[in-house]
Amino acid sequence: MEDRSHISPTATLLFSCPDQKGLVAKIANFIYSNGGNIIHADQHSDVAAGLFLTRIEWQLEGFNLRRDVIHPAFEAIAQPMGANWQIHFSDTIPRIAIWVTKQDHCLLDLLLRHQAKEFSAEIPLIISNHPKLEAIATQFGIDYHHIPINRDNRQEQEQKQLALLQDYKIDLVVLAKYMQVVSPWLLQQFPNIINIHHSFLPAFAGANPYQRAHARGVKIIGATAHYATEDLDEGPIIEQDVVQVSHRDEVADLIRKGKDLERVVLARAVRLHLQNRVLVYGNRTVVFA
Amino acid sequence: MEDRSHISPTATLLFSCPDQKGLVAKIANFIYSNGGNIIHADQHSDVAAGLFLTRIEWQLEGFNLRRDVIHPAFEAIAQPMGANWQIHFSDTIPRIAIWVTKQDHCLLDLLLRHQAKEFSAEIPLIISNHPKLEAIATQFGIDYHHIPINRDNRQEQEQKQLALLQDYKIDLVVLAKYMQVVSPWLLQQFPNIINIHHSFLPAFAGANPYQRAHARGVKIIGATAHYATEDLDEGPIIEQDVVQVSHRDEVADLIRKGKDLERVVLARAVRLHLQNRVLVYGNRTVVFA
Amino acid sequence: MEDRSHISPTATLLFSCPDQKGLVAKIANFIYSNGGNIIHADQHSDVAAGLFLTRIEWQLEGFNLRRDVIHPAFEAIAQPMGANWQIHFSDTIPRIAIWVTKQDHCLLDLLLRHQAKEFSAEIPLIISNHPKLEAIATQFGIDYHHIPINRDNRQEQEQKQLALLQDYKIDLVVLAKYMQVVSPWLLQQFPNIINIHHSFLPAFAGANPYQRAHARGVKIIGATAHYATEDLDEGPIIEQDVVQVSHRDEVADLIRKGKDLERVVLARAVRLHLQNRVLVYGNRTVVFA
Amino acid sequence: MEDRSHISPTATLLFSCPDQKGLVAKIANFIYSNGGNIIHADQHSDVAAGLFLTRIEWQLEGFNLRRDVIHPAFEAIAQPMGANWQIHFSDTIPRIAIWVTKQDHCLLDLLLRHQAKEFSAEIPLIISNHPKLEAIATQFGIDYHHIPINRDNRQEQEQKQLALLQDYKIDLVVLAKYMQVVSPWLLQQFPNIINIHHSFLPAFAGANPYQRAHARGVKIIGATAHYATEDLDEGPIIEQDVVQVSHRDEVADLIRKGKDLERVVLARAVRLHLQNRVLVYGNRTVVFA
Repeated sequence: MEDRSHISPTATLLFSCPDQKGLVAKIANFIYSNGGNIIHADQHSDVAAGLFLTRIEWQLEGFNLRRDVIHPAFEAIAQPMGANWQIHFSDTIPRIAIWVTKQDHCLLDLLLRHQAKEFSAEIPLIISNHPKLEAIATQFGIDYHHIPINRDNRQEQEQKQLALLQDYKIDLVVLAKYMQVVSPWLLQQFPNIINIHHSFLPAFAGANPYQRAHARGVKIIGATAHYATEDLDEGPIIEQDVVQVSHRDEVADLIRKGKDLERVVLARAVRLHLQNRVLVYGNRTVVFA
Repeated sequence: MEDRSHISPTATLLFSCPDQKGLVAKIANFIYSNGGNIIHADQHSDVAAGLFLTRIEWQLEGFNLRRDVIHPAFEAIAQPMGANWQIHFSDTIPRIAIWVTKQDHCLLDLLLRHQAKEFSAEIPLIISNHPKLEAIATQFGIDYHHIPINRDNRQEQEQKQLALLQDYKIDLVVLAKYMQVVSPWLLQQFPNIINIHHSFLPAFAGANPYQRAHARGVKIIGATAHYATEDLDEGPIIEQDVVQVSHRDEVADLIRKGKDLERVVLARAVRLHLQNRVLVYGNRTVVFA
Repeated sequence: MEDRSHISPTATLLFSCPDQKGLVAKIANFIYSNGGNIIHADQHSDVAAGLFLTRIEWQLEGFNLRRDVIHPAFEAIAQPMGANWQIHFSDTIPRIAIWVTKQDHCLLDLLLRHQAKEFSAEIPLIISNHPKLEAIATQFGIDYHHIPINRDNRQEQEQKQLALLQDYKIDLVVLAKYMQVVSPWLLQQFPNIINIHHSFLPAFAGANPYQRAHARGVKIIGATAHYATEDLDEGPIIEQDVVQVSHRDEVADLIRKGKDLERVVLARAVRLHLQNRVLVYGNRTVVFA
Repeated sequence: MEDRSHISPTATLLFSCPDQKGLVAKIANFIYSNGGNIIHADQHSDVAAGLFLTRIEWQLEGFNLRRDVIHPAFEAIAQPMGANWQIHFSDTIPRIAIWVTKQDHCLLDLLLRHQAKEFSAEIPLIISNHPKLEAIATQFGIDYHHIPINRDNRQEQEQKQLALLQDYKIDLVVLAKYMQVVSPWLLQQFPNIINIHHSFLPAFAGANPYQRAHARGVKIIGATAHYATEDLDEGPIIEQDVVQVSHRDEVADLIRKGKDLERVVLARAVRLHLQNRVLVYGNRTVVFA
């Protein structure tokens, strides 16, 4: 996991509510009057939506509220504002399940970054609809569950997937080239799912984006990390990046170049999520980077 | 026009034909045996299409064929190969018509680049469906023709546009934010038309791309220069570029940032075309940059 | 100037002080208790430097302090914190002087952006050590002062420059390819000067960066906008951008491509400065973008 | 190794000589008259240096010259031109040695790309001045030689390094974060060495580039892959790339972001070299990409 051992634990508030006067003051006062030292604060107002969104991180050292009291104490302030909010503690390490099919580049990239302590998370579980990548799981000492899915057994197999998420106390699912749709019911039960799509969405949503990019003769290709939603490739976008291509690049070259994009775009999105820097509202994200 | 006065005139061949052995040798021999010195040669093979495409530029100084003989002499070689080809002389200066509506940023950018000698071309004609930008034409000493178009008079007005292109001996039309479709019949009569679309095609083809990019919450926006074809925003892409945006960018910011993209992407495409670096085949381009 | 007529006037605080608890709360309370509505707040802590820096913008509509009282009232809060701070009102329009030599591309770009209302500023003054660009000043209705400088008359001529800045009540000088050093004494008298350097600093500081980039065989070139300081090309960097080049690009191509960079990088830096988004400390900037 | 099993073997000529008429014709004729089918040809003229450089690749299937005759046959043509040239056969697989110290990210990246068949090469040897990364070598089944170097034993240890390169028949050395200088005598004995430097050269040549980039307050960082030469970080540049940073990025963030750059920039350079797309002349490269 990310090495933050030199940093004392922090609390991070992700907060949104209808815009109104005094929001910053009220939240800052709550933290200050309880002895907290703010180390990061950022806010955004979506004027059209009339919405205020903020991320505030403060040191727990010297903060006078016990952790189990923070929630009810803050709710007393947030409730009159009509707010949606979450508070995360930096020493509560999130647990990730990675779902894959047969391609290994995103999986290996995530595992190596985890090993290099780029992520403050644990990765106890890999789920796949294919047996192919089990050796990688073994190498990294991670449990691998092969749950094949077809048209007839989807509901039943997704029940198994959900059960595993619960058994392993998973906080975040990363679809690292998982070439299956996830059913709406499962997304409702477990909404924290990040997907990587191998195109610059909304261009080339759906299947075979590199083939279609080649056929269209584009001069730039991209990759998009987004939260999974019921509408395929329509979820809130967290991160995108692109790379130049030319007429010399055949489909195989687009795939090769695209893999480098997929790796970094997915890794950046996972890191932003783990650092509680992403706030979703409607189909959009605010990324407090 | 671009200052190439220090360079002796050159001929540039753009050539494509079914792939076969000896193409490079035959073309290079034609030039060499007539005393020409090749200063640029690039080729591409589209293996899937079985097509060979090349751009070869050579100095006319010391070339022993008279210009009026070059065409028939080369046709004798090209015809057996089943080739499509054009030869351009660098001292035959192409003539551009710029078509605009009300936005001036691409128009001004093209005119200032022309003034700075970035383009080897003349710009004698501006056509608009609005009177708004006439003062700019006046300032730069360019004829401005206001040809309003509505649903009822399109055919008749496009006849006037075509007549102007012929009167002014125009080689290339640049749609510099011309917010009108161009009818198929006109495109058939005059196919050399470059358009700038204010999105990263194929994303957000059609109207209001910035509004739609904002609504979708993308993290990158783009612009695309392409040859105009009957299918709106579906023509062969010459150049694309992108810029990062964030949740802080409202539609007005996307428009502002996008203008910088539109300017440079259109200018690059026009320059590539004027230097005879773009070969179209099917709905794709080879850009010998 | 930038069209913000639909937005009610705002005050923007740029603030830095030694890091300590309660800073956000105290500042937010000052604004809230006086009836202000914060529309933008961002902060940064430089842990190594032990410094807290923030930008807070709030609406003046409904704010109960008279403008002439805001300064002394806030000083009462800021002084015990040991803070450096400025407050800017969005309806006090800053006045820019552009200094040029012979190249017109940055000048024209700034003037056209001003005309397109991308900048909330007035541009009443152009100063040049050459007469060449006077026609552009005339065209845009701006006063042009030709102040030739050589080794012998520098001090005397810079006195004239400073007098002009004072006469025209200039707030910001933009060196838009002004190919002269500015003396330390003048920088002390007038420190708000933004320069554009045609390289990716610290690479190729000093003269002829494109020639040297070509000689070094780099694959990317850049441009850098920074505040001018006594040490040439060593001032705090506001904005940088780059573009790919290849072995095909001769020095003239680097210059041409570089101009596009210079234009956008300088324009972005000027806009960030005018929006009071740049805080300088030491030789660094915080850009609250 | 890169999977080119579907492609018949090719020969690739890398060629440079003083510019003169008929070069393309003579080389193309040599290939065509012997029955070869050119599948890639690109050329460059450095006008200032009076130099012609080309890369030509043709299929060996149907080529009538035996491989052992190609060299002397072509030398008969090349010698009168005063040319430097090499011919590589695509089914002669180059052998790479990777040199590392303690950082594993570039090493792992190269090995995983090799495993994914992105490189047409064998990697039989890893040399390190530290024992740390031996486990990775073991995992991938590659010999690992630990050759510690200090001020006193450099000459002697470099003799061992060179002997290993000879024993393993190494064609290319990749310095994948090898934190030691390589002595001039060794570079003369073995000049095919690619290094990755963790800055945008020539900015921040030498030690601690990320620390210095942070201190300078740059807004973009980079990485550079170049051939190693006697002058540290002064060799011919093959590939560069950059990424945006901000005031929020501490040195650790620059290092983390930089690693992603180092990985892709080094991998691209190695791939370009292996595909014989890089021609060095003076301190510059032509990259026929």
